[in-house]
Amino acid sequence: MSEARFQLHVITDGKRHANELYEIVDGAVRGGADVIQLRYKSAPALDLYTLAQAISPAIREAGAGLLINDRVDVALAVQAQGVHLAAKSLPIASARPLMQPNQLVGCSVHSVEEAVEAEAKGASYITYGHIFATNSKPGLPPRGVESLRQVVEAVHIPVLAIGGITKDNLEEVLSTGVAGIAVIGAVMADEEPERAARQLRQVMDASIH
Amino acid sequence: MSEARFQLHVITDGKRHANELYEIVDGAVRGGADVIQLRYKSAPALDLYTLAQAISPAIREAGAGLLINDRVDVALAVQAQGVHLAAKSLPIASARPLMQPNQLVGCSVHSVEEAVEAEAKGASYITYGHIFATNSKPGLPPRGVESLRQVVEAVHIPVLAIGGITKDNLEEVLSTGVAGIAVIGAVMADEEPERAARQLRQVMDASIH
Ligand code: NI
Repeated sequence: MSEARFQLHVITDGKRHANELYEIVDGAVRGGADVIQLRYKSAPALDLYTLAQAISPAIREAGAGLLINDRVDVALAVQAQGVHLAAKSLPIASARPLMQPNQLVGCSVHSVEEAVEAEAKGASYITYGHIFATNSKPGLPPRGVESLRQVVEAVHIPVLAIGGITKDNLEEVLSTGVAGIAVIGAVMADEEPERAARQLRQVMDASIH
Repeated sequence: MSEARFQLHVITDGKRHANELYEIVDGAVRGGADVIQLRYKSAPALDLYTLAQAISPAIREAGAGLLINDRVDVALAVQAQGVHLAAKSLPIASARPLMQPNQLVGCSVHSVEEAVEAEAKGASYITYGHIFATNSKPGLPPRGVESLRQVVEAVHIPVLAIGGITKDNLEEVLSTGVAGIAVIGAVMADEEPERAARQLRQVMDASIH
């Protein structure tokens, strides 16, 4: 991920058929998403593989990247830009050597300690959150912008903020020194994914940070 | 797989904790199982990885092999002997190049056509079944020994018979020219897995075929 431009990752919400997913992803990358992370928990490998192949042309055409959540083998099979590891995925240190050196291996962290460990184990980037209250994590208290700042200061790899980020609180997030943000519902659940992505993109491009 | 000795694969039934699984696997390989296929459908990668590491020492000590069901990435991470692909796994042609040349890529087939296709796509071996009525596939009619014979004659890669095979019908199965058999409950659900595996081993070693 470039340091020159804030990164916008859009994570799929795993409830879509191929045609619908294609439309949303196509809109997201046209609107300015840099990366689509295909997440479809407990889906069979074949379904994930098929969806990845379905959305790859739109992603490639826009010059964006594709990350596969959890399945290193699917990421390899579709020659994705990388894999994103979650808490119950393969350990980073085991997954990293399976990927090509130029492929990304990211992971989700929830504390400074996890962030430092992920970097030490070879993570290419981390996502940290959730920053604000979000429907994806009901009941769990948000971690807030100040703890995000601590994570950013604790590691040298890119940190993406996740959780409840909107165009209205985005500038505050960007003030922490993050490399970018990851969103799910803010784009996936919007009636106009392209417009939703573009609005986030515009805030990022216009940021004073 | 050697042509010189009938192969005995034991597939785990995915309902075990690590300690219990270790005891059963240890018994199975001591009793003469050549391969343990770790199958644990829809388990998180981390759980499969942890179980694979837990049972590997017993398998290695007995000179047996470990196959991972479905997850090519876990098979690579634990340096397993190979991977076994099911209907909803990655396609053989996509999975084969991800594995080392000396690692096995097997798959389940249910017809002569699927067998021929699997061989053409690069499968190292196939399992065919179910041969006899089995609790694992209630309601589905068994495919029988004659269709097994047709599959064996249609391909050059090793064919393992699966489904309802016991020490009592084993000699009939071996008469078809199979490379061996794969069992689940016959070993996993036996009160004495080591004895159960040894009884199958003895029939195979004493076979006139
Ligand atoms: Ni004969």
